[in-house]
Amino acid sequence: MVTIPSTGDEQLQKAKFDPGLTQQYGGPLRRAINNDGTFNVIRRGTSWRDFHPYLQLVSVSWATFFALLLAGYTALNVIFASVYYVLGPHALKGGMAGNQFLTAFYFSSQTLTTVGFGSIAPNSHAANLLAAFEALIGLLGFAVATGLLFGRVSRPSARIGFSERALIAPYQEGASLQFRVVNRRENSLIEPEARVLLMTVERNGPSVRRNYTALNLERPSVLFLPLTWTVVHPIDSESPLWNKTAEQLVEAEAELLILIKAWDETFSQTVHQRYSYRFDEIIWNARFTPAFTVGSNGDLVLDVGKVGDYAKV
Amino acid sequence: MVTIPSTGDEQLQKAKFDPGLTQQYGGPLRRAINNDGTFNVIRRGTSWRDFHPYLQLVSVSWATFFALLLAGYTALNVIFASVYYVLGPHALKGGMAGNQFLTAFYFSSQTLTTVGFGSIAPNSHAANLLAAFEALIGLLGFAVATGLLFGRVSRPSARIGFSERALIAPYQEGASLQFRVVNRRENSLIEPEARVLLMTVERNGPSVRRNYTALNLERPSVLFLPLTWTVVHPIDSESPLWNKTAEQLVEAEAELLILIKAWDETFSQTVHQRYSYRFDEIIWNARFTPAFTVGSNGDLVLDVGKVGDYAKV
Amino acid sequence: MVTIPSTGDEQLQKAKFDPGLTQQYGGPLRRAINNDGTFNVIRRGTSWRDFHPYLQLVSVSWATFFALLLAGYTALNVIFASVYYVLGPHALKGGMAGNQFLTAFYFSSQTLTTVGFGSIAPNSHAANLLAAFEALIGLLGFAVATGLLFGRVSRPSARIGFSERALIAPYQEGASLQFRVVNRRENSLIEPEARVLLMTVERNGPSVRRNYTALNLERPSVLFLPLTWTVVHPIDSESPLWNKTAEQLVEAEAELLILIKAWDETFSQTVHQRYSYRFDEIIWNARFTPAFTVGSNGDLVLDVGKVGDYAKV
Amino acid sequence: MVTIPSTGDEQLQKAKFDPGLTQQYGGPLRRAINNDGTFNVIRRGTSWRDFHPYLQLVSVSWATFFALLLAGYTALNVIFASVYYVLGPHALKGGMAGNQFLTAFYFSSQTLTTVGFGSIAPNSHAANLLAAFEALIGLLGFAVATGLLFGRVSRPSARIGFSERALIAPYQEGASLQFRVVNRRENSLIEPEARVLLMTVERNGPSVRRNYTALNLERPSVLFLPLTWTVVHPIDSESPLWNKTAEQLVEAEAELLILIKAWDETFSQTVHQRYSYRFDEIIWNARFTPAFTVGSNGDLVLDVGKVGDYAKV
Repeated sequence: MVTIPSTGDEQLQKAKFDPGLTQQYGGPLRRAINNDGTFNVIRRGTSWRDFHPYLQLVSVSWATFFALLLAGYTALNVIFASVYYVLGPHALKGGMAGNQFLTAFYFSSQTLTTVGFGSIAPNSHAANLLAAFEALIGLLGFAVATGLLFGRVSRPSARIGFSERALIAPYQEGASLQFRVVNRRENSLIEPEARVLLMTVERNGPSVRRNYTALNLERPSVLFLPLTWTVVHPIDSESPLWNKTAEQLVEAEAELLILIKAWDETFSQTVHQRYSYRFDEIIWNARFTPAFTVGSNGDLVLDVGKVGDYAKV
Repeated sequence: MVTIPSTGDEQLQKAKFDPGLTQQYGGPLRRAINNDGTFNVIRRGTSWRDFHPYLQLVSVSWATFFALLLAGYTALNVIFASVYYVLGPHALKGGMAGNQFLTAFYFSSQTLTTVGFGSIAPNSHAANLLAAFEALIGLLGFAVATGLLFGRVSRPSARIGFSERALIAPYQEGASLQFRVVNRRENSLIEPEARVLLMTVERNGPSVRRNYTALNLERPSVLFLPLTWTVVHPIDSESPLWNKTAEQLVEAEAELLILIKAWDETFSQTVHQRYSYRFDEIIWNARFTPAFTVGSNGDLVLDVGKVGDYAKV
Repeated sequence: MVTIPSTGDEQLQKAKFDPGLTQQYGGPLRRAINNDGTFNVIRRGTSWRDFHPYLQLVSVSWATFFALLLAGYTALNVIFASVYYVLGPHALKGGMAGNQFLTAFYFSSQTLTTVGFGSIAPNSHAANLLAAFEALIGLLGFAVATGLLFGRVSRPSARIGFSERALIAPYQEGASLQFRVVNRRENSLIEPEARVLLMTVERNGPSVRRNYTALNLERPSVLFLPLTWTVVHPIDSESPLWNKTAEQLVEAEAELLILIKAWDETFSQTVHQRYSYRFDEIIWNARFTPAFTVGSNGDLVLDVGKVGDYAKV
Repeated sequence: MVTIPSTGDEQLQKAKFDPGLTQQYGGPLRRAINNDGTFNVIRRGTSWRDFHPYLQLVSVSWATFFALLLAGYTALNVIFASVYYVLGPHALKGGMAGNQFLTAFYFSSQTLTTVGFGSIAPNSHAANLLAAFEALIGLLGFAVATGLLFGRVSRPSARIGFSERALIAPYQEGASLQFRVVNRRENSLIEPEARVLLMTVERNGPSVRRNYTALNLERPSVLFLPLTWTVVHPIDSESPLWNKTAEQLVEAEAELLILIKAWDETFSQTVHQRYSYRFDEIIWNARFTPAFTVGSNGDLVLDVGKVGDYAKV
């Protein structure tokens, strides 16, 4: 028999358990995991102490990120320009005649970015000291921006493509549940591992309850992923899908929860990806068709877009 | 039977062992682990060779960090300014007439930060060479500061919220010890794992001794943590809490030592968090009440602040 | 009996399985893994959404990387210079008389790099604002370049040397398949682990099929790798090589697929390396000769170049 | 019975095996592992292709690193200055009258560091273009230097203190081999793990042979390391030390090879440390004395310097 090769196996083999989503609840729920891997959970009651600036700034969209950067840069310049302005018309020399504040603003931007043209220059002790301080702030600020940009740009992520449908396919003498994955990127993913849970909803009069069962896989892990990988759950007598019909899966609001884990050779990091198939994304009696051909020189030619191609049996 | 699924299990299953704190000691001790995860241990006898500047500068408070930065910047400027001053009044041109040292200081700050306005400029071979060297030092110094700032800002940390109290709650036909955790941040924590130790103090006449026992958990690990996770230790005949009363726990100065480990998807790092409940933070005969409701559109609505909510049975 | 000590063992012990390459195909194929660890797979059908700029820019050659950097820098300067040019001849002061566009280009480069000589300086409100913006863009751009350069330079990689040939060598009373590895670099590799698969091709009339078998190793992992490590597969009655001849290996297009994993102490990262031996890279009846001698002062003197030295038995 | 809880156990339990050092050799050898964790191995036969600049520059001493930086900076300036010089006396304006090369050198340093005072400025098309290129080179060069400095400064390392001596200490009714470790730094080390091998030398007439045996540990791993950890190998009938005398250990040139692994909470990295005790660093019939006392307020007061304190029994 195949077992899920991970910490806590004994637990997962139990007929019913909670993988960290909930079991009991009091209303109709949407699917547990969206196709992009997010959960349908709304969070309340967090305080400012739970806010981690780095996590936020690494997660926001690029548009938001650059808008925040530009706003911060402008705000700092306005603040420093105001102080130079307060220091009086002789604090700075050069610049745009007749507009002391804008001159201060330009000078501030040239100091904060350390560009320092010198066409506007500090001309009093106070302005010199403030410029020395502003240049320090500028360097530190851009150090943080550098770190954030690098953190955003180099943040490990997988881009594993899933077949649009899971299949109930013939398997030996019986049937199996299958889905297929491919690495949509060119980098190497090593030792990908899959875990698959079946979530069903049980209605007992007014009470509803979600049940979770780990599905045994023919092979929970492979060594490499240069081609496609068909993850196979044999529907044997131990399977919760044994003797089930398509109608029963609809009624039970069945959903497959999938967690893929792999080592990314370019990021040198473990990457995770979640996915889910609902009852209406399962095709009965079909088989995946190969996504690759053999090239004239003996290469395997993989068509990433064909990861979901299947044929009815 | 449930076992703790981690390296070294055999050890933890022994009735008594030392997890790295001490067993024998000669006086009244405070709790072993504080609620913020720190140990009540004072360290002596370390030498300067044990000092690791990066570890220190990444760990000090932000106020201390910026004070050290500002102090270092000022000190470097004073040192370089002194050398320019020693080079004589013609080493630099421009600047504040009549104050050679301050002119040198301003020039130094403009060189160190590479702002280089040019309103003060080197005017001798020695000053030119020194400025070339100072700009190099400035770039390297700010490289280090950039690294430290990034190290501080991007340092992985978990912010797992614990229920304020652990509960002795009904469980099947018997009882269990429970506490509840929640991820206070929005990022995904994957495969959180818990380990729970019970520490008790045994007095045998004048000698005192700490005993540690690993508590079996109904489920030592879950797959995801989008909601709350109730960690449950069933009090069966193998449990060291079997047939114990609240008074006995007080007398034994019982303390639960907790270690949570998870994979943080945003940091792409394993994160750890320690916590502890003492005998006076355990509530008898209570149950946690749900911390989430079902929203109108089928979302689960989690109230992070309710992680500790319980009701007496 | 020796088992492969890794996740998913149960699978690998099966007579036939697919490690992530394919089993069934319809034409003559080249070797599965090249000596540099790459797969003979050509990818099609990816879209721009699968493109990850960081992964690409970290993987391209140094020549391409610097060409892209230089092109990007020049393009940005041309764009900004065009805007300064459009602002008219009085937007900037100083510079090369009579050539407004080149003056704008030089000014742009001095602003983007924050060098800011000041010999060309902004002289209108629009030019001042644009320069403030360009310096910001420059700092952010170079932040990204800094991150990319660091990512390229510090990207973990192993440089494990393999013997040019695998050997069928005497072993106890029988025979074994052996190959030898060495760390070609000076840094410490800790706990190297090897996995070895045998791939053979089975022809059944017109249909061809690749079979994969995990080979049991005498010792799948060692603690350190300061010297050479001879990886040994004993050819016992459980081995797929049992009673095979050299001719049979040629006929079956036998190929050994090798995956080495180790912890690199300098990178503080896990590193992987793949390798492969084909039937024509296997020498029968030979033994590796030592690659080290004992120095006069009791040191072991390792000659990395001798990792592949063997002698016929 | 206690087993070593790590991958490859089956192997380590064998009476004799090679952990990656060698078994057979032809002359007197020094100790296998020095006290600083390095091996007594000299490497030959590597080529320039095995050279990894980052690994080298991260590993050299700070003095060498800064000398290389200064040399590289000077060399770049000399090269660029030569080109400016070749461009003729009108390529640059300003600077030190009468010394065209030094003026070019100063200008180059101001451009490379992006300090750009402007007191020397480019004055021809060629000089302007070259300055634009040099500033780019400077920014990229300092990007690499920033990365290297950060890589050096933030490189994970443990500083685990070992007792100067290993002890043969009473244990239950028999004896045990013990040594004690402490974290010399303030940061948290989580789940430290120890592996201990005994190396002995066997002489059989002219041939010498090193034998390695993994020693079973009472507890191969603890959860935390805020205090000291005494690693204990019980000398039972399965131990290779059973019924051995001190003279026999001298004769066999016995050496204990130790590998400690832990998770460093501040670096967020796994750290390793090696150590070794030779026969002449083992004390018979002694016990470690506590390295901590209880403070007046209930804190444990650890004296890191007392990690090696012992008393004869």
